[in-house]
Amino acid sequence: MNPETLFWIVPAASVVALLFAAIFFFGMKKADEGTDRMKEIAGYVREGAMAYLKQQYKVVAIFFVIIAIVFGVMAYYGLQNNIVPVAFLTGGIFSGLAGFIGMKTATYASGRVAEACRDEVDGLNKGLKLAFRSGAVLGLTVVGFGLLDISGWYLLLDNTGLVQGTGVEKLVEITTIMLTFGMGASLQALFARVGGGIYTKAADVGADLVGKTEFHFNEDDPRNPATIADNVGDNVGDVAGMGADLYESYAGSILASAALGAAAVAAAHGTVDQAMQLVMAPMIIGAVGAILSVLGIFIVRTKQGANQTQLMAALNRGINFSGVLIALASAGILYVLGIDNWLGLWGSIFIGLVVGILIGKVTEYYTSFEFKPVKFIAENATTGPATVIISGIGVGMISTCWPVIFIVLGTIGAYLCAAGELSFSGENLSMGLYGIGIAAVGMLSTLGLTLATDAYGPISDNAGGNAEMSNLGESVRSRTDALDALGNTTAATGKGFAIGSAALTALALLASYIEELKIAAGRLGDSEVFLSYFSGTPIGKGSEVATWGIAEFMNKFEVTLMNPKVLLGVFVGAMLSFLFCGLTMNAVGRAAKSMVEEVRRQLSDKEVFEGTKKADYARCVAISTQGAQREMIIPSLIAVIVPILTGLVMGVAGVFGLLAGGLAGGFVLAVFMANSGGAWDNAKKYIETGDAPFCGKHTPVHDASVVGDTVGDPFKDTSGPSLNILIKLMSMVSIVTAGLNIAFSLL
Amino acid sequence: MNPETLFWIVPAASVVALLFAAIFFFGMKKADEGTDRMKEIAGYVREGAMAYLKQQYKVVAIFFVIIAIVFGVMAYYGLQNNIVPVAFLTGGIFSGLAGFIGMKTATYASGRVAEACRDEVDGLNKGLKLAFRSGAVLGLTVVGFGLLDISGWYLLLDNTGLVQGTGVEKLVEITTIMLTFGMGASLQALFARVGGGIYTKAADVGADLVGKTEFHFNEDDPRNPATIADNVGDNVGDVAGMGADLYESYAGSILASAALGAAAVAAAHGTVDQAMQLVMAPMIIGAVGAILSVLGIFIVRTKQGANQTQLMAALNRGINFSGVLIALASAGILYVLGIDNWLGLWGSIFIGLVVGILIGKVTEYYTSFEFKPVKFIAENATTGPATVIISGIGVGMISTCWPVIFIVLGTIGAYLCAAGELSFSGENLSMGLYGIGIAAVGMLSTLGLTLATDAYGPISDNAGGNAEMSNLGESVRSRTDALDALGNTTAATGKGFAIGSAALTALALLASYIEELKIAAGRLGDSEVFLSYFSGTPIGKGSEVATWGIAEFMNKFEVTLMNPKVLLGVFVGAMLSFLFCGLTMNAVGRAAKSMVEEVRRQLSDKEVFEGTKKADYARCVAISTQGAQREMIIPSLIAVIVPILTGLVMGVAGVFGLLAGGLAGGFVLAVFMANSGGAWDNAKKYIETGDAPFCGKHTPVHDASVVGDTVGDPFKDTSGPSLNILIKLMSMVSIVTAGLNIAFSLL
Repeated sequence: MNPETLFWIVPAASVVALLFAAIFFFGMKKADEGTDRMKEIAGYVREGAMAYLKQQYKVVAIFFVIIAIVFGVMAYYGLQNNIVPVAFLTGGIFSGLAGFIGMKTATYASGRVAEACRDEVDGLNKGLKLAFRSGAVLGLTVVGFGLLDISGWYLLLDNTGLVQGTGVEKLVEITTIMLTFGMGASLQALFARVGGGIYTKAADVGADLVGKTEFHFNEDDPRNPATIADNVGDNVGDVAGMGADLYESYAGSILASAALGAAAVAAAHGTVDQAMQLVMAPMIIGAVGAILSVLGIFIVRTKQGANQTQLMAALNRGINFSGVLIALASAGILYVLGIDNWLGLWGSIFIGLVVGILIGKVTEYYTSFEFKPVKFIAENATTGPATVIISGIGVGMISTCWPVIFIVLGTIGAYLCAAGELSFSGENLSMGLYGIGIAAVGMLSTLGLTLATDAYGPISDNAGGNAEMSNLGESVRSRTDALDALGNTTAATGKGFAIGSAALTALALLASYIEELKIAAGRLGDSEVFLSYFSGTPIGKGSEVATWGIAEFMNKFEVTLMNPKVLLGVFVGAMLSFLFCGLTMNAVGRAAKSMVEEVRRQLSDKEVFEGTKKADYARCVAISTQGAQREMIIPSLIAVIVPILTGLVMGVAGVFGLLAGGLAGGFVLAVFMANSGGAWDNAKKYIETGDAPFCGKHTPVHDASVVGDTVGDPFKDTSGPSLNILIKLMSMVSIVTAGLNIAFSLL
Repeated sequence: MNPETLFWIVPAASVVALLFAAIFFFGMKKADEGTDRMKEIAGYVREGAMAYLKQQYKVVAIFFVIIAIVFGVMAYYGLQNNIVPVAFLTGGIFSGLAGFIGMKTATYASGRVAEACRDEVDGLNKGLKLAFRSGAVLGLTVVGFGLLDISGWYLLLDNTGLVQGTGVEKLVEITTIMLTFGMGASLQALFARVGGGIYTKAADVGADLVGKTEFHFNEDDPRNPATIADNVGDNVGDVAGMGADLYESYAGSILASAALGAAAVAAAHGTVDQAMQLVMAPMIIGAVGAILSVLGIFIVRTKQGANQTQLMAALNRGINFSGVLIALASAGILYVLGIDNWLGLWGSIFIGLVVGILIGKVTEYYTSFEFKPVKFIAENATTGPATVIISGIGVGMISTCWPVIFIVLGTIGAYLCAAGELSFSGENLSMGLYGIGIAAVGMLSTLGLTLATDAYGPISDNAGGNAEMSNLGESVRSRTDALDALGNTTAATGKGFAIGSAALTALALLASYIEELKIAAGRLGDSEVFLSYFSGTPIGKGSEVATWGIAEFMNKFEVTLMNPKVLLGVFVGAMLSFLFCGLTMNAVGRAAKSMVEEVRRQLSDKEVFEGTKKADYARCVAISTQGAQREMIIPSLIAVIVPILTGLVMGVAGVFGLLAGGLAGGFVLAVFMANSGGAWDNAKKYIETGDAPFCGKHTPVHDASVVGDTVGDPFKDTSGPSLNILIKLMSMVSIVTAGLNIAFSLL
């Protein structure tokens, strides 16, 4: 079938996704809000969350304006396409809007979920459905806006005179320009993840250290002044942050695949039709996945009194349903598009889906207390906090093994399926790289649904908080706890999935960087391209450089592993991941310390401690907000500036090294931190269950496990997830500054 | 002057170094051993250490025999030179012997140092001199055996018919064969570092957790059954392990530089004389450095009642003296050898020296309580152990920034000085890589002395232990404490130095890998070289491949960063560092747990607790020994097998990726772990000083800092230092199996 016709599925799916997001949103709004106290609590959380987001968007806006101006200047000097500054902004706006809507929904929903759980007959099922469909608002908004942004720009660039040229060349130009839109989404995601991550953990650690450890309050005790901030944190970190992160992966993987597809056909001197097929495939798969996600959402339901396994089964039913259907559908899509190697590309997509599932399973193995690793950490709590930390770090580091092996095998597999033969050179290289990109698209195709299971977690968590603070009684709390516990499991696998998709997307972006460099070279026309400022002889005219194949390009730009610039780029990249994590860890530490001091100050007032005087929640919310805003600046600046600086000093070779080192180092570090954190969290929970040979709450063994959990908080919710963005953002920054890299490098 | 003549300095220096090692050893043996109790304690430690080493050598011997057989088979099939299996063994034997002698010396010395400190008039000076000269035995033995092994094999290969060919080619062949001797040293070092590291920290953590935390014993309380094991651990970990580690860096950097020098001249079609100059330069600089180290050792002395600063000044005087002289001497050596670009190469050497010093300074900044980072961690102890851990990890991660920048700038600088111009391509690439190698030689040239300051630490530590267990009284203990405190500072900078030199050496080894591949290709003669088993067309005959320049070689073998095999190798390499650390962390955890249980069991006997019945030290020694032996197998196997497996599956491109990823990831991880560990250790010590605003021992704040210190133990003494070996060993394994890589790869 004609790809141009099939394309219309993309805007259509976008409308469908956004429509159902609206239906779920207004459906949720109609649900009962509960008692006045419940409304009050929900109101505090909503206000706090909105205040934070407003503050964050202010800072982000400043960054966006500055960068848009820089891009404008670059465009003026011909180093970049004129459209980029505008497109950069839309990417950021849509990503921010998705986070905003998702979070607004979550803060409206959590009180209502608590209210639903008060139904003694069908409370659990009602609560699950409400929480899950509210989470689905985030999932569908992300997917809907993503497809809208992509299809909108494609139509604009294809049908106006903004892009010159014809045929395959025009498609290459359109798709590589579109790729740079991702930069806006990336930057928005960075602030959302880093700022949100610092916010949520400063509040959480602060609330726990004083409230739980010093005063032995329960979780969400209304006397704890940091409780509201803690609940706000779940929303800004786990809802808005996660949404922005995956928005970026989603858009990034589709755009990178499209660009790689056009480039692969250009390299093979193929026809416009062939190029259109490869460009459309990722978009249409994403669109069909979005529609299947909506169907999957309707399948999730359970019965009253369901246990953990049955609840999990309910969610899995929806996920499996959409997963199997998209696997089948994508084969059909590729076939209908008329792609020659449709079966091979389908293999790549299938591999992407499988790798996503496997990484999720490994994450579950290393972070669930059903299995040995977490039990091992829990055993180590009997010899105190030090051995808890040692064993948790040990387990987390070991846990990096399988995800890396899966990514490696998956990438090779996706490459080979797409390339159609066992070779890593020449023209096939381009097709193989396209295979890697489309594997990422496969992994993310049902994002609408998987993101719903993610966002469901913090909503349930907040519902529990609302129930506790509103004194709704044991039976209600036990229902919200059941929903929340499930949320923890889905959050752990969701994190594995977020990291895995970030790695594949970043690999695809890395491949796209070279295409962007060639486009940038083409823009230079007859001007000479120099390897470096100090090198005397030019390596070719811009227009020639633009025609080189990948192998020739890499060769001329000396991007081999014996070039010290490449090697040293790899060093800097690996280091950057650590620096970034260290800065965010310390940021949480500092912000948490202010929080601890404030909570101690308030609780030293006897009336507050006894609950007769209301704690000043707003002050704690303000501390977290300010801490997060202040602390997110430096890591964010580093993430943006280092790739640019590396390019200016060490050129294309240095940037490639930087991206490869950052990607590999960042991925491994992210898996380590996420899994250590998750394992500590569940080791504590395991000890709390009171199962032999360990004892329950408020024993030295439990205290030791709480130390692990507290250390794990910034591991799994701040530094680890922020690395997902770092690895993608560095590629994105390099892609949009490719013009600079081609025009100038010092060494 | 004729390089052949100057060469004789090398064996001569070897003899001088070994001679002075013997003089210092027998001088130490003549010193008074003290009371019967002191002899008894020293006897226990000596026995324990020897028992451990014997056990370790047994395991190592099995490995060596197996690997020698494998090499033999490879040699039989023409995949390797016939000499390699034998040479592999001598490297291992000399390295093991140096560790054995150094440790034997240390265990004889520590009791005598305690005795020397009993002198009320001149005790401190006597103690310092004795401890330091005993440490120098290790330093000089390492250097002496290293130079002996190198010069012996050079003479053998140069003057017999073992190597065919003439002129530059013969030199290339000789030096690349010699390089493989380093593999034996590497493997010995791996076991020494990993086994010793596990041993020492299992004993330390076990002794502390029960003795200090549960029973509030002081350090080295004779009632603690794990005390002797703890003291043994200092010897097997910090003396034998550190010695083997640096033996490998020392030999590796000289051998790699020699090989790179010969290759650089071959690439530039230079004369035999030029090749000889470059081959001899690193050996002669090492030899002169050894002699200057001996002189430096004689300069270290201090006066009674000297404070920390004066003690440090005494050590620094020796180090600065040798450092300045070798800087001057190496300029002379290069000039006398008649090297054209002697000034440039001198620049490379000077940069190596400076980078070593700078990394040491950064390490000091991040790990000494004089500075902000450690104070920041100490402040975080006021909010409990969790914030101590978070801030320590944050500080450690941030501390990776400067060492990486220094290594990056230093490597670029060394490259540019040697290459003589600002370009990273063609023939200059070979000369530039030689510059990187010789920078490592410069950094390590005064190893005889710097290693003495390292080994001095555990000797002083053990002297303190002996004084405590023999009840020598406050004034003696205060003197041994002063020596010990100094030892902690030198140990921290020593670790920075060990990591820095490992990184530069590994970079040089990586560069040598390509030379080894070419030699291996040459051995294949008329046989075709295939890129992979599945690729249909050969890339050239073996004899042709052997003549390719670096750029052509990298191009033909597709070692560019867009080759998925390379990228994925980088992933696996980065992951391997984490896996290796995780395994060793958990190994310490498990071994420490057995120790905790044994100590608890013994102390549950009231008589042992009250000190009326002697604790069963031997049992704890046996537990550490067995634990270390058992636990070191798997990490060691991984380090050896993964590079081979990567080569078999992903070929030369995959191996290059693996080495680059492992080197960068491992270096950054090693710096992080060493500095976090050191910072925690000193944060605890800072709190113990009682300086405001923190309190002294046995307060909650102090307890929190003890948790950090305990976590830091395996960080800084097991996992971190083991990574130094990992990054070098992986290159070494790849170098000796280069024949396999050329002959076969699956993908």
